[in-house]
Amino acid sequence: MNVVSTVDPRDGRRRETDLRETSRQELAAHISRASEAAEWLAGIGRVGRAALLDEIAASIESRRADLVATAEGETGLGHARLDFELTRAVVQFRMFGDVLRDGGYVEAAIDHAAETPLGPAPDVRRMLVPLGPVAVFGASNFPFAFSVAGGDTASALAAGCPVVVKAHPSHPLTSQASGDAIAAAVRRQGGPEGVVAIVHGQDAGLALVRHPAVRAAALTGSLAAARAIQAAIDERPQPIPFYGELSSVNPIVVLPAAATERAGQIADGLFASFTGSGGQLCTKPGLAFVPSGPAGDELLGSLRDQVASAGGAVLLNERIRDAFVEGEARLERAGAQVSARPDIGSATGFTVAPVLLEIDISRFSAEIADECFGPLMVAVRYDEVADLDAVLAAVPPSLTGSIHAGTDDDRAAVRRVADRFAATTGRIVFDGYPTGVRVSWAQHHGGPWPSTNSLHTSVGATSIRRFLRPLAWQGVPDWLLPEELGDGFREIPRRVDGRLEPGEPAAGHDPGGDAAPG
Amino acid sequence: MNVVSTVDPRDGRRRETDLRETSRQELAAHISRASEAAEWLAGIGRVGRAALLDEIAASIESRRADLVATAEGETGLGHARLDFELTRAVVQFRMFGDVLRDGGYVEAAIDHAAETPLGPAPDVRRMLVPLGPVAVFGASNFPFAFSVAGGDTASALAAGCPVVVKAHPSHPLTSQASGDAIAAAVRRQGGPEGVVAIVHGQDAGLALVRHPAVRAAALTGSLAAARAIQAAIDERPQPIPFYGELSSVNPIVVLPAAATERAGQIADGLFASFTGSGGQLCTKPGLAFVPSGPAGDELLGSLRDQVASAGGAVLLNERIRDAFVEGEARLERAGAQVSARPDIGSATGFTVAPVLLEIDISRFSAEIADECFGPLMVAVRYDEVADLDAVLAAVPPSLTGSIHAGTDDDRAAVRRVADRFAATTGRIVFDGYPTGVRVSWAQHHGGPWPSTNSLHTSVGATSIRRFLRPLAWQGVPDWLLPEELGDGFREIPRRVDGRLEPGEPAAGHDPGGDAAPG
Repeated sequence: MNVVSTVDPRDGRRRETDLRETSRQELAAHISRASEAAEWLAGIGRVGRAALLDEIAASIESRRADLVATAEGETGLGHARLDFELTRAVVQFRMFGDVLRDGGYVEAAIDHAAETPLGPAPDVRRMLVPLGPVAVFGASNFPFAFSVAGGDTASALAAGCPVVVKAHPSHPLTSQASGDAIAAAVRRQGGPEGVVAIVHGQDAGLALVRHPAVRAAALTGSLAAARAIQAAIDERPQPIPFYGELSSVNPIVVLPAAATERAGQIADGLFASFTGSGGQLCTKPGLAFVPSGPAGDELLGSLRDQVASAGGAVLLNERIRDAFVEGEARLERAGAQVSARPDIGSATGFTVAPVLLEIDISRFSAEIADECFGPLMVAVRYDEVADLDAVLAAVPPSLTGSIHAGTDDDRAAVRRVADRFAATTGRIVFDGYPTGVRVSWAQHHGGPWPSTNSLHTSVGATSIRRFLRPLAWQGVPDWLLPEELGDGFREIPRRVDGRLEPGEPAAGHDPGGDAAPG
Repeated sequence: MNVVSTVDPRDGRRRETDLRETSRQELAAHISRASEAAEWLAGIGRVGRAALLDEIAASIESRRADLVATAEGETGLGHARLDFELTRAVVQFRMFGDVLRDGGYVEAAIDHAAETPLGPAPDVRRMLVPLGPVAVFGASNFPFAFSVAGGDTASALAAGCPVVVKAHPSHPLTSQASGDAIAAAVRRQGGPEGVVAIVHGQDAGLALVRHPAVRAAALTGSLAAARAIQAAIDERPQPIPFYGELSSVNPIVVLPAAATERAGQIADGLFASFTGSGGQLCTKPGLAFVPSGPAGDELLGSLRDQVASAGGAVLLNERIRDAFVEGEARLERAGAQVSARPDIGSATGFTVAPVLLEIDISRFSAEIADECFGPLMVAVRYDEVADLDAVLAAVPPSLTGSIHAGTDDDRAAVRRVADRFAATTGRIVFDGYPTGVRVSWAQHHGGPWPSTNSLHTSVGATSIRRFLRPLAWQGVPDWLLPEELGDGFREIPRRVDGRLEPGEPAAGHDPGGDAAPG
């Protein structure tokens, strides 16, 4: 099979690695081992899997320096960002350990046999069970937190599903090193080889989701990648769920009083949010609605100054760099004008200059709301808050929608924007920025199409639900029931005869949440 | 547009109704009114919707005699069964009233702003919100409980989603009368016209799921119907979730000691389960594994006697009757032999004779496990429990799998069958029968493909999840939050900073569950 190569985006140089693209035979062997590993993951139970996740977190932590250095050479994301992202990955594994020890995620419910308005009813008990081996596609822009050692892997393992990860071609060595870290942890816990496997190559990725033993697929990536994966899934006799986190322009509305009260502060926030990580975040704000008049001028002036004096941003790969250049040209053709762009001299590798574009709301069109992945934001100037309604209706659904309101902004106007975002996004951010997605119990990272293709989240505790299905037991004797459904079990929240019992967690359950870029 | 006709399956006579197939213009008007009704359903809140569901239950109850009589003339299902099914429909609406008052279904979670291992994190709050207007396809075999006044409608309305129901052509008058009953209840609660609408005709059904304002679709029906609906959905630029409850053979394993201990009792149970409602239940057992030897002979002898003296069963429509006749012939070609079939003389309308087929396990093939909708069961005779493993692996996934075990049956063998069913079904039934699906909090009605195409249930409290999506609020002030996410709110279960708080329900919350055929 083909040799896998890696490219340093800082200089564009490609070099061969020791890795090969995964053959069909190797893929079949990985999936066969994954099926066996499913039994082991079930056998160690919730508490055993929590220990496994903690061990994985520790293993990744112990290899921090190597992992971050490897990722730096493959992604061009800076050391500080990657170091932070690795912490996020560690935190995610630990959070799912807490989710497992809490146990509420299995949604245990018991209805005892009873006389009902429909006659005598049998004893019925329900909880969620793992789907089986799942496919995860690593993301280009998060070599740790949304790749081999990312949230999809953590949530799937927590659910009890072995994972076969298709490594993103932008960071094969980081993927392999992450896989090695996980494998070492699995071995320390006495687990078999198939708990997590890595495959390389586009063919292997598509063959993976066509395989009958694979029960779900998750992707953080482009609409084009999602279409290719969905087409492969559609070849299967049995459909499987496919969770894609895809495309999002993340509009931000700055209301007039907010601009008046804190123009400089908002300019700083916008700059950091749209240029951080080279603008290569799913939640990067691509569109900011800024009022006309002096306050808006001041805000944009400050933003322009910061952009004009910014350095170049190294993008992840050649395709993303080319798409950025094309995307910017497309926005200019649609009428947006360059408001600020630094001269970064002769750029090496996949380096580009960050860009602030500007357009008047009267010239707004659907093309202006197209996502352009990278360090670019379009500022849309508006005169009247009432003019926002129609324009926001033309912005495609997104992961997030943000509102900056001042004390003097009309509450009815605030509510109108919030109601719009409630209908068209997955997270409403108030006086803040959409990047820096907190990893916690209440987080939701998802939204209406095209931001995602499902009703699920890919960040936060409830992302485990993607890899579970319900199962009911009717009249089943205690010895044959899962522990969690026994009458005497009290350690997890359960709904018994319709009433929620919060459970009495065993020692060691310590819920917590965290924040990270996204 | 074409006149809608109705057929009495007892005599096969077709007559015209006052109804017309729904035109494109009428459909658009229905969906437009549904979109407006979504705001009303949101505005009345959880408690308001609970009152609406109670009012609908009362309205259906008050029209019981008319509804049952109308359904009898269109479906041929007997009076007792239909009377019971109407009670089930009433119970379903009331159960979702309880689900709303409980409020746990919104999965409210609050993570307060905090210092975390990833730095300061913002306040994030999450709950589930309604999808918007949804399409429901009425089922042929449940004119009440899985049709206009069925569980899909009840759970969608509970979620806050207006419903456009495609009436099943086997019972247009029942569908319309059910819709009238619901409409009267909506009016009494001051609601608008678009809360529930009925459309007639296949074209209208497909146009419905293609409409951009429709956000989800639910079907209880055939694989062919599901394929047609999915193809129409695939024409949309934006995908929508499609929940199909499709095809299921529902295997039953009778272990040797069970046959020895209670052959007659199991024969009675099997007979009732596979012939009840003309065998036209999603959970009808189509395949029973019965041990060879005297106890199995006694069981089958008793079953044969009951089948041989049974009367004819009126099937729902001509297509189902034809498919039944073909299905039986197909099973005979695959090697199953007629074990018992009564002579029912010259059958009128769509009446057929119930059939018990028999085959030795050595001749078992995948064709023998094909679902044949109607009053037919294949008994598979086996010598050794160990022989079941390979054969059960060839049975397609089902909604249910049932095990009858006696006190002397080997527990390891019981566990092996249960583990198989845990992997390939949605409900494991022990010493019971899969029909008579209890409607309750812990119920699950679903299973791996081809029994369903999703990871969701279409019966029980959690079926509401199909019509909801998560939404997060970050840093949003109290006045702009939904009531359920305010710091001071205590009435529903919420997860606050990772810990589940069970809530202090307002008066009137009285959880309960019920049982019904399925």
